[in-house]
Amino acid sequence: MANSIKKAPAEGGNKGRRVINSKNSGSAKGKHINNKGARKTGHTHRGGTRGSRTPNTHTESPSIKIAFLGGLNEIGKNITLFECEGDMFILDCGMAFPDGDMLGVDLVLPDFTYVKENVDKIKGIVITHGHEDHIGALPYLLKDCNIPVYATPLSKGLIENKLKEHNLMSSAKINEVRAGDEIKLGCMKIELIHVNHSIPDSVGVAIHSPAGTLVHTGDFKIDFTPATGKMIDLTRFAELGKKGVLALMADSTNAERPGYTKTEAKVQASFESLFIRAKNKRIIIATFASNVNRIQQIINCASANGRKVAFSGRSMLNYMQVATNLGYIDVPENVIVDIDTINEYTPEQIVLVTTGSQGEPMSALSRMAYSEHRKVAVGNGDFIIISANPIPGNEKTVGNVIDELLKRGCEVVYESMYEVHVSGHACQEELKIIHSLVKPEFFIPVHGEQKHLKKHAELAESLGMSKNNIFMGDVGSVVELKKGEMKELEKVASGMIFVDGLGVGDVGSIVLRDRKHLGQDGLIIIVASLDISDGYILSGPDVVSRGFVYVRESEELIYEIRRISLEILQGFAMKNIHEWNLIKNKIKEDVARHIFNKTRRSPMILPIIMEV
Amino acid sequence: MANSIKKAPAEGGNKGRRVINSKNSGSAKGKHINNKGARKTGHTHRGGTRGSRTPNTHTESPSIKIAFLGGLNEIGKNITLFECEGDMFILDCGMAFPDGDMLGVDLVLPDFTYVKENVDKIKGIVITHGHEDHIGALPYLLKDCNIPVYATPLSKGLIENKLKEHNLMSSAKINEVRAGDEIKLGCMKIELIHVNHSIPDSVGVAIHSPAGTLVHTGDFKIDFTPATGKMIDLTRFAELGKKGVLALMADSTNAERPGYTKTEAKVQASFESLFIRAKNKRIIIATFASNVNRIQQIINCASANGRKVAFSGRSMLNYMQVATNLGYIDVPENVIVDIDTINEYTPEQIVLVTTGSQGEPMSALSRMAYSEHRKVAVGNGDFIIISANPIPGNEKTVGNVIDELLKRGCEVVYESMYEVHVSGHACQEELKIIHSLVKPEFFIPVHGEQKHLKKHAELAESLGMSKNNIFMGDVGSVVELKKGEMKELEKVASGMIFVDGLGVGDVGSIVLRDRKHLGQDGLIIIVASLDISDGYILSGPDVVSRGFVYVRESEELIYEIRRISLEILQGFAMKNIHEWNLIKNKIKEDVARHIFNKTRRSPMILPIIMEV
Repeated sequence: MANSIKKAPAEGGNKGRRVINSKNSGSAKGKHINNKGARKTGHTHRGGTRGSRTPNTHTESPSIKIAFLGGLNEIGKNITLFECEGDMFILDCGMAFPDGDMLGVDLVLPDFTYVKENVDKIKGIVITHGHEDHIGALPYLLKDCNIPVYATPLSKGLIENKLKEHNLMSSAKINEVRAGDEIKLGCMKIELIHVNHSIPDSVGVAIHSPAGTLVHTGDFKIDFTPATGKMIDLTRFAELGKKGVLALMADSTNAERPGYTKTEAKVQASFESLFIRAKNKRIIIATFASNVNRIQQIINCASANGRKVAFSGRSMLNYMQVATNLGYIDVPENVIVDIDTINEYTPEQIVLVTTGSQGEPMSALSRMAYSEHRKVAVGNGDFIIISANPIPGNEKTVGNVIDELLKRGCEVVYESMYEVHVSGHACQEELKIIHSLVKPEFFIPVHGEQKHLKKHAELAESLGMSKNNIFMGDVGSVVELKKGEMKELEKVASGMIFVDGLGVGDVGSIVLRDRKHLGQDGLIIIVASLDISDGYILSGPDVVSRGFVYVRESEELIYEIRRISLEILQGFAMKNIHEWNLIKNKIKEDVARHIFNKTRRSPMILPIIMEV
Repeated sequence: MANSIKKAPAEGGNKGRRVINSKNSGSAKGKHINNKGARKTGHTHRGGTRGSRTPNTHTESPSIKIAFLGGLNEIGKNITLFECEGDMFILDCGMAFPDGDMLGVDLVLPDFTYVKENVDKIKGIVITHGHEDHIGALPYLLKDCNIPVYATPLSKGLIENKLKEHNLMSSAKINEVRAGDEIKLGCMKIELIHVNHSIPDSVGVAIHSPAGTLVHTGDFKIDFTPATGKMIDLTRFAELGKKGVLALMADSTNAERPGYTKTEAKVQASFESLFIRAKNKRIIIATFASNVNRIQQIINCASANGRKVAFSGRSMLNYMQVATNLGYIDVPENVIVDIDTINEYTPEQIVLVTTGSQGEPMSALSRMAYSEHRKVAVGNGDFIIISANPIPGNEKTVGNVIDELLKRGCEVVYESMYEVHVSGHACQEELKIIHSLVKPEFFIPVHGEQKHLKKHAELAESLGMSKNNIFMGDVGSVVELKKGEMKELEKVASGMIFVDGLGVGDVGSIVLRDRKHLGQDGLIIIVASLDISDGYILSGPDVVSRGFVYVRESEELIYEIRRISLEILQGFAMKNIHEWNLIKNKIKEDVARHIFNKTRRSPMILPIIMEV
């Protein structure tokens, strides 16, 4: 049975009800796309996959199983599998950014073991929006499992950019869908619902399954006056709620924050007054490259003030290219200029839009702050706006960049009181609206750390939901739902796969432990060449150290290390003991003890014996 | 000429005016302490120390020079030198905590070069309060320069604890002084003024010098209803302002925050309502060990609710001991119990006060969160209050600890809305009060990063001060002031000295660079034994790696590294070239290139050649 997409009428997302009508009447507007990638699967009831304790037989009412491979108790790496009557699909396939203790790791992927085990059942991957934590792991999965992907146009454009980098464009099957469309994946129909977020073309989903309807908000907020596009399709959420929803999964990112997330329109107003304040200065605005709406507002404001706009930062140029090509950014003529030409204009004629709002070390703004940018030198003629909040963990680096810019004489606007940024996620009052419209039987807080999930669960309880109807999951959790019943099943294979350079999964806990040790305390190598026949020293022991102390100022310590090692080597040779591991361990222990006593430090000690 | 202390009347700080009267009348209450430590210095005018461009001769009116060795453009490491007519004294001697990129560094000290160069002139060290960023570097300075120290009783107790650890108690000269006292140090008289802060016994200073009076607030806030003790001696600041103040130096930590810092009394009210909410649960409160007033409030609240109080964490026990011995904590009988006995009580009978409010990895609260605490296991019977805000840079680790506690079922109160913490520093409206009372001719914002100093300068300007009368300094800056004149002089030696274990200053930029490299990318060692006569290989090359890849899964890569190295060694041997450095560099380059091409990584590569 092929997958198919039932297209919404041209008016799009806000006309949700009409889509449903056309669907119910089997409207000719429905367009079918054959899914040649997915292997065909029979539709027999085949419950009881790995971990299930409740095989789904013909005598029972159908249930739906949800497996979370990421996004619970963590920020990012969002990927969820839904399974009903032997059919499966994946919602989102994101990566996460490494924590501070994942030294040298570039990005973190979900463990795809469970996906690979079930690849025959999986009918497709549905993408809610084009952020890295929702699409970033796609190339790594598609490399091994060529599952068809369904994404809205901007998400599709961003995914294709990624696939080009990974040389996967010719094989991958990326299908374009829009808010209001319905994707048939086996026995489930995935309806896309327009939501507001910090990137255009974001959708939530309603999953219509034999077990009932599930609603997943994706990342969302409620913006009555978004910078571009329409407000979230609250009507559709209300309709679904009226018909009956088995379970709601909703974005918990801002569940700790009372009140409402402010509208993007507020940011426009802030920009307008700051552009006046900046008068005859050059304006530099740092923001998220993916925040296409924000960039549109900057372009509007620049154009209204007779300023040209230039861009700096690789990802900024990437996003601009995709968003412009697909018509998500509307640029008046002669407004965009190349960064190489900005010095041909006076400062008051320029707005420079740049990456680096998180203080990332190699970003364009950081390079400006530390005078390392090849094309832009900043100083007291610059008015800099940080149109973003620091993501938790980045506060210090963002603060350092601001300090450096201030030291160079720049005026810097970064405080929340200037309202130059609004979040892309719903706060408590918005969450209450969604909960109250959708009125689900069960609730699963998703997308957040434990504290966000907990707060979101408490919010649901405050609206009258029973604690027993709330599932607090973790990475690897599987929950089985049907009307009146929620069961937690056994966990499935899950975890983190580290990407370091080109290596995927070749850095694990032992390598990270060594990196941490080396990074904290440095290294001492003790190397000697021994005669293989009698164990006597032919050369060495030599002591080499890195990241430990200035060797020149610690000659005595190095001398002592050599003396201790020499005595051990001679001692074993005299006793005619040639077990290198025994000797190496003895050197390690004695040298470590000596160094700790003298310095209270514990560098890594690496004895190397060369047999000659 | 000996130093002396003029004692305030017994009523203490709030009676500032009477102290002045008694001083002016040469009151018999003035008590002189001989300073046997400071070397005697003649009182000739000896301006023009290192860096001065304006030698201070008899014909000129006297000036005062201020040298900042820390605390500007950084948080912590507060130490300032004042010099007038050849006499000097030091205000505070603090350390800083290392930034994330100072791998393996335990703490950061000021560079004492300038102090040591001028030790003959320095009459004393005056301490404003007992926090680490004001006293933490004292032992390291006193080791080399036994300058007499003047500190209020609690600060003195905390300093003495430190000196005991460093075996300096017998030599150091710590003089006890109190708010209202005046310390005569050469031609300068240092008057101590009671201020509010997050540790008792904090003072600001007025420096009465031949060049005029300077006011330095130290760390301060204005609390009309402090938990213990009196409110800040605003009257004295007003009196000084009326008489005329040459320059004000004031705490900039909270200069970005509008409004007022809330009173400690607010925290008491919050504790009271949370104790009711916690009902039959054990209460665990994490706070700064040095926040003696906060701990007093917890004890009061526990006692009123019939709960016992136990303490966990080494620094918590240290501070408690000093504060209790000196009478800064008032403990009702039978309230304090040993942590070993808490399991003899029911949960609702216990309050546990612990370190770890910053998520520090080895702290008591972290160990509880990760189930590594030897004496306390937490779970759903625990009500945990984080009575602190994360210091910038600690947000992520604090968040992680909270998440772990929540996962274990604990209830955790950590959000600002619960008002379980107030800052120890003045916000904008409080700063305006001080500026408006002191009415200085010149202003120098101190104690803060660039953004804090800038905001504080803008605040002074908003009150009418000319930009030309504000000095924006940096670590190492020296400014010379006299009535109507402010000059920046040449910078003096300054910087950061790293403490790692017992080593002071033996870790510098090269060692840190190596640690960073090793931590990010790991290490590959290539070692071979060569015949010293002809350069032919006797053993190896062997490849050892740490923190790079799982070697077992990367055998091909390791094999290739060995092959490349072998070919280079053989090639040079055949060409009869035995310049080891040349050979090692060639190995380094070729192996690095190969690894980068294969993996996009750049581990540290260490070729070692053993001559046999």
